[in-house]
Amino acid sequence: MTGKMTIALDAMGGDAGPDMVLPGAELASVRHPDLRFLLFGDGPRLEAILTKYPRLKGRSEVRHSEIAVGMEDKPSQALRRGRGKSSMWLAIEAVRTGEAQGVVSAGNTGALMAMARFVLKTIPGIERPAIAAIWPTLRGESVVLDVGATIGADARQLVEFALMGEAMARSLMSLDRPTVGLLNIGVEEVKGLEQVKEAGRLLRDLGLPLEYKGFIEGDDIGKGTVDVVVTEGFTGNIALKTAEGTAKQLSTYLKLALTRTLLSKLGALLATGAFATLRERMDPRKHNGGVFLGLNGIVVKSHGGTDALGFATAVDVAIEMIRNGLVAKIAADVAEINKHMDAFAPRAAVDA
Amino acid sequence: MTGKMTIALDAMGGDAGPDMVLPGAELASVRHPDLRFLLFGDGPRLEAILTKYPRLKGRSEVRHSEIAVGMEDKPSQALRRGRGKSSMWLAIEAVRTGEAQGVVSAGNTGALMAMARFVLKTIPGIERPAIAAIWPTLRGESVVLDVGATIGADARQLVEFALMGEAMARSLMSLDRPTVGLLNIGVEEVKGLEQVKEAGRLLRDLGLPLEYKGFIEGDDIGKGTVDVVVTEGFTGNIALKTAEGTAKQLSTYLKLALTRTLLSKLGALLATGAFATLRERMDPRKHNGGVFLGLNGIVVKSHGGTDALGFATAVDVAIEMIRNGLVAKIAADVAEINKHMDAFAPRAAVDA
Repeated sequence: MTGKMTIALDAMGGDAGPDMVLPGAELASVRHPDLRFLLFGDGPRLEAILTKYPRLKGRSEVRHSEIAVGMEDKPSQALRRGRGKSSMWLAIEAVRTGEAQGVVSAGNTGALMAMARFVLKTIPGIERPAIAAIWPTLRGESVVLDVGATIGADARQLVEFALMGEAMARSLMSLDRPTVGLLNIGVEEVKGLEQVKEAGRLLRDLGLPLEYKGFIEGDDIGKGTVDVVVTEGFTGNIALKTAEGTAKQLSTYLKLALTRTLLSKLGALLATGAFATLRERMDPRKHNGGVFLGLNGIVVKSHGGTDALGFATAVDVAIEMIRNGLVAKIAADVAEINKHMDAFAPRAAVDA
Repeated sequence: MTGKMTIALDAMGGDAGPDMVLPGAELASVRHPDLRFLLFGDGPRLEAILTKYPRLKGRSEVRHSEIAVGMEDKPSQALRRGRGKSSMWLAIEAVRTGEAQGVVSAGNTGALMAMARFVLKTIPGIERPAIAAIWPTLRGESVVLDVGATIGADARQLVEFALMGEAMARSLMSLDRPTVGLLNIGVEEVKGLEQVKEAGRLLRDLGLPLEYKGFIEGDDIGKGTVDVVVTEGFTGNIALKTAEGTAKQLSTYLKLALTRTLLSKLGALLATGAFATLRERMDPRKHNGGVFLGLNGIVVKSHGGTDALGFATAVDVAIEMIRNGLVAKIAADVAEINKHMDAFAPRAAVDA
């Protein structure tokens, strides 16, 4: 099903680097027998690990790179040290040249975004890329963006996020007409930021081919009220991390409660199957992969602290986006939409 | 322990109005035998309900009011209709005149804040009031503010929030030196909003008598990394509601998982005690009560949809704030701190 798809991996990214990335790629190889990999990183180290994974070895090519971007490097440092030669840069470069159709990295988010913007450039008509998270909800999954590519967004940028997120939801969840909501606050005396209100007006009045459902609040994300949740990167990042913190908090409570007494331990034992289902639903490794939207190429960021299973999920996400031609979809949508937008809301006027 | 404390209740506030508020006050009467109430609302209706609660009846005084602020009224509508005569306004007014030491309402948040600002005014030296939430964490409880009084805050306003939240944490959690953190995002290429960074510099350099711990991220809230989490109202409101949504989502998953098979149902039955503990920890009624900080009087907002138990918790919060002289603490802190602030960061310069 993946045809002759090739994915470039920054094998040095993530807390455990190639010791996590390569087993992750092996798992992805099992799932996708036609998939090929370009593995960028410390050649001898990668070759040594590959001896344990003959299947992966047969389907991948190692590209040596001396330099690995550190997880704590600032984007400017990473660019200075790693431009043109780090495993991260070279993996992205493989997408630009067409050797690979997408890149996956568990490395430093800031550096990855900076390099990806530099190498791939934004799609014509898109001002700023965004990072989209795949958020598990009571109804399934939603796309939430921006979760931290940039801080702040004006009305027109929020509309661009809506378009890009909608295209991603169509690709990822095979929805014909995903619903879109703008994240806002419901307290009456403060009816939301001006740019959010203005974005709401644009989404309602522009006649975009997009199912806009209006404002939603924070608790609507988990409910799955809409398929695509649009907000700027500061709020989006804090919402995402707050939800992660709450999930961790509640699973800690649950563990504590279930190991407190002999009876509760016995109960937990009997309900093992139920808890396996619960763990599965809550497993962050099943929802791993932040998609960089708005660039001329597919870039997926895996959690740095994930394991092989989580990394394989991020590869799955990349495959899905490639297979559905996400970049072309966004480019076409944006070209179409910018005709409307320029008439209704010239960029300068919206920005002012 | 409550001495001759009197609390004014907006008996008409909340989804169920007096049918929830009066039973809630009854519960609070049991907990606090010295407490007195002024009950503002529809006199005949309140008197009728009170016949069921002779204890509460003996300790409260009904003040008739024809007008109740609607849960969906805009603050401007509420002020127009309810100024000087609604149960909400009159309850707040009782704090201003000194008849009551604090007011609790489960009514419309926006209207309550608008009326409270109008009647009580802000403490000298405080620019804007904030709403502080009491957030259950893995370490106990934290104070999070602002969760929606206003949108946006400059550096100096964030510092004021830090001071007020710190005073509240000292009162509520009997801490000598609560720790304070500024909510920010950790993505490296976007190191946070300018005003958050500037507030960080002020908190670090001003030599305030306050245990400032630096920036924290969304997942630190649930961990309880700091006792006081400072952010502006848009982000704070979205973080709070997102966490509520996630908690509801996970408890739905848990219920579904535990009722799926006979074995899991049996397990759940055996672990009933454990789940009671879990429910207790997660019970939003145990953490009910948003405190309006920065006003010349104690105003506590209860969730509109809570029940008697939740309302009694909000009354507990008000009592704790009154007993600890929160308003005087904040006023003294602010007077002291503004001497430092004016030297280091004149208001005009910070606002620019």
